[in-house]
Amino acid sequence: MKGMILIMDGLGDRPLKDLNGMTPLQAAKTPNMDKMAEKGINGLMDSIKPGIIPGSDTAHISILGYDPYEIYTGRGPFEASGVGVDILPGDIAFRCNFSTADSNKIITDRRAGRIRDGTKDIINTLNGMIIEGYEDVKIIFKESTGHRAVLVLRSEGHESLSDAVSDADPKNEGKPPKTVFPTDDTKEAVRTADILNKIVDTSYEMIKDHPVNQEREKNGEPPANIIVPRGAGAVPEVESINEKYNLNSLCIAETGLIMGIGRFAGMDIIEVEGATGGTDTNLDNIIDEIVKHATGNEYNFLLINIDGADEAGHDGSFEEKLEFIEKVDKIVIKKLLEIEDCYIILTADHSTPISRMDHTADPVPIIINGPEVRIDNVKEFNEIEAHKGGLCRIRGSDVMDILMDLMNNSSKFGA
Amino acid sequence: MKGMILIMDGLGDRPLKDLNGMTPLQAAKTPNMDKMAEKGINGLMDSIKPGIIPGSDTAHISILGYDPYEIYTGRGPFEASGVGVDILPGDIAFRCNFSTADSNKIITDRRAGRIRDGTKDIINTLNGMIIEGYEDVKIIFKESTGHRAVLVLRSEGHESLSDAVSDADPKNEGKPPKTVFPTDDTKEAVRTADILNKIVDTSYEMIKDHPVNQEREKNGEPPANIIVPRGAGAVPEVESINEKYNLNSLCIAETGLIMGIGRFAGMDIIEVEGATGGTDTNLDNIIDEIVKHATGNEYNFLLINIDGADEAGHDGSFEEKLEFIEKVDKIVIKKLLEIEDCYIILTADHSTPISRMDHTADPVPIIINGPEVRIDNVKEFNEIEAHKGGLCRIRGSDVMDILMDLMNNSSKFGA
Repeated sequence: MKGMILIMDGLGDRPLKDLNGMTPLQAAKTPNMDKMAEKGINGLMDSIKPGIIPGSDTAHISILGYDPYEIYTGRGPFEASGVGVDILPGDIAFRCNFSTADSNKIITDRRAGRIRDGTKDIINTLNGMIIEGYEDVKIIFKESTGHRAVLVLRSEGHESLSDAVSDADPKNEGKPPKTVFPTDDTKEAVRTADILNKIVDTSYEMIKDHPVNQEREKNGEPPANIIVPRGAGAVPEVESINEKYNLNSLCIAETGLIMGIGRFAGMDIIEVEGATGGTDTNLDNIIDEIVKHATGNEYNFLLINIDGADEAGHDGSFEEKLEFIEKVDKIVIKKLLEIEDCYIILTADHSTPISRMDHTADPVPIIINGPEVRIDNVKEFNEIEAHKGGLCRIRGSDVMDILMDLMNNSSKFGA
Repeated sequence: MKGMILIMDGLGDRPLKDLNGMTPLQAAKTPNMDKMAEKGINGLMDSIKPGIIPGSDTAHISILGYDPYEIYTGRGPFEASGVGVDILPGDIAFRCNFSTADSNKIITDRRAGRIRDGTKDIINTLNGMIIEGYEDVKIIFKESTGHRAVLVLRSEGHESLSDAVSDADPKNEGKPPKTVFPTDDTKEAVRTADILNKIVDTSYEMIKDHPVNQEREKNGEPPANIIVPRGAGAVPEVESINEKYNLNSLCIAETGLIMGIGRFAGMDIIEVEGATGGTDTNLDNIIDEIVKHATGNEYNFLLINIDGADEAGHDGSFEEKLEFIEKVDKIVIKKLLEIEDCYIILTADHSTPISRMDHTADPVPIIINGPEVRIDNVKEFNEIEAHKGGLCRIRGSDVMDILMDLMNNSSKFGA
């Protein structure tokens, strides 16, 4: 028996006047999700706990059975892992922007004109960086999408590094990068802040005249001539999900952040062609990969994240959110219903209400389908009906335990 | 957006034969509370956790987002804070009775004939008390209502005090005050017990011939001639609720105990004229203060406690409880329904069933009203319907987090 958790990112919402007091999920025509509700057990889920607003990362960490309060130390490590840097325990990771600085190092464009191409070449140059006095610290850059990149600092000597350092990102244009300072008084934090300040300065010297930037300036585009790090996080050490639950697991995700969580948990990762993380994503390709691996022999646990509903929520467009939900229903969920010998969980990581255009703590609906679930009377998949189901109100941290029990993949505690 | 938690003290109950198997809240005509249920999201709440019988103090501590298991160390500090003693971390506080002792120091009336007047004068005399050998310990008495008073011991020297001491209150008449003993073997506890025994003896010597008592004896009333402390508690240090949640908060309460919790949490406190803490309280004045401050600019968070239902429960009178609930519905809740731009939570701190005449752990109904709540199908406010609501069963410790999320007053954990 296999197991699958399909997370529709940011799916949860609040009642909307524009939809006669319904949520987008209530208002959307979702015959296939409703079918899942009808033949499953339903409930509400707080990914972390009631009232706590989850990030996508902390929510996924929690749903995968890890305690985000224990292991979450900033976004850097997950972002780095997501773009394919093999991070190690002890590493300190940062999210970075390529920005544009003038000759006085004042930031004139935080996103370097939203540069799309050429960052890989610039990263190749930056990866030769060595900071004088800190030759034992390996400096790893890796490009992400657009103007985004990650930076990982790895101590290869005796002295450790620390994530207790502030951001260099000035948040506004017209200012120089902020001087990074240690946020505690350990010598590791002092050392890491000093390294970081030197990296920012050195990056400008190394790439201001890079061919990619010369070309951009020739075309009147802002050069990507400085690296501005933020969101320091130390890389925690965790037992892989495969060891923890005795699984062969696969993560199918669209964004670097969620791939990072999957990699962190030791899952195999598949990038789906045409997956954009937006409402324009290629859902046909996504469901094809799901069906292939849910019916194949290589994996017995799949984590899938489909991101579009969250994007629509952040954009504040109920039409876009509703339409995307209907598309997922028609393309993805329809075929999901045909998969056999698999416990399938359909849920979200958090709510991203149209009215708020950001995450909220409202719990999300959850369904479990599979041969032996206790079917309840809920016949619709939405935020309002869900609480009438047999699961009542559970937490993200319960999900893997419940699934492993259903899969007959866990052991008795006691005799 | 503002927030308000209205707590009807001891509201919860159990089915009563006298009410055809209904609870007082079920049997009462409460059109306004039912209106709140209909336009809100409903559920059950365990103020501490299922099966744990809350005190009014521990319940309020928990609902305000503090962990009572961590900070609650006896009722004394909250009672002291409630009657206006500015307690400091390290203080040890006690609840006291004025009792009547005969010349052999046998307690003949634990409540000194339920004395009403004159205790302030007696307290003035007691406040000069210095115990030989413990001159560095400041002894602060303060009268409360009726025969009640508080005692606070504050070390002004190098040696600390301890709350690990037993009660002096013999609980029954016809016995002398109990000798206080240390309940652990620290030298602080030994010291504090010794001080306390001397305070009891000294109090008798200082006030047995007090003019107030001479007058009482002349009138054939039992004199308030000895102080009997109980309920030792050390004063913990906590972050104020205003800092913790970034609020400007006000507490409107009727009893010293709840005002003490408010003060402890750093809230402003309003005493309402005519508020008695009983079923005869002035509900018109209470709702006037609520409306004034819920629509004013000074505060964005109100905690309100209305005590009458608890009193009726302790008295075991279902008629009185039912009648009081109907009065609150008609006078308070009716006007509450007119307040706009405010998330309003209606709940109780615990159940005080008529059949038990004391607190029980039965969970209490809770409603949240406000512009963006997920309205469910519950249309009545009572202990039986509540569980069908969209909140399912939450805990007191979830309430502030959920409210802060609705008020858009909290931040995301993660990205």
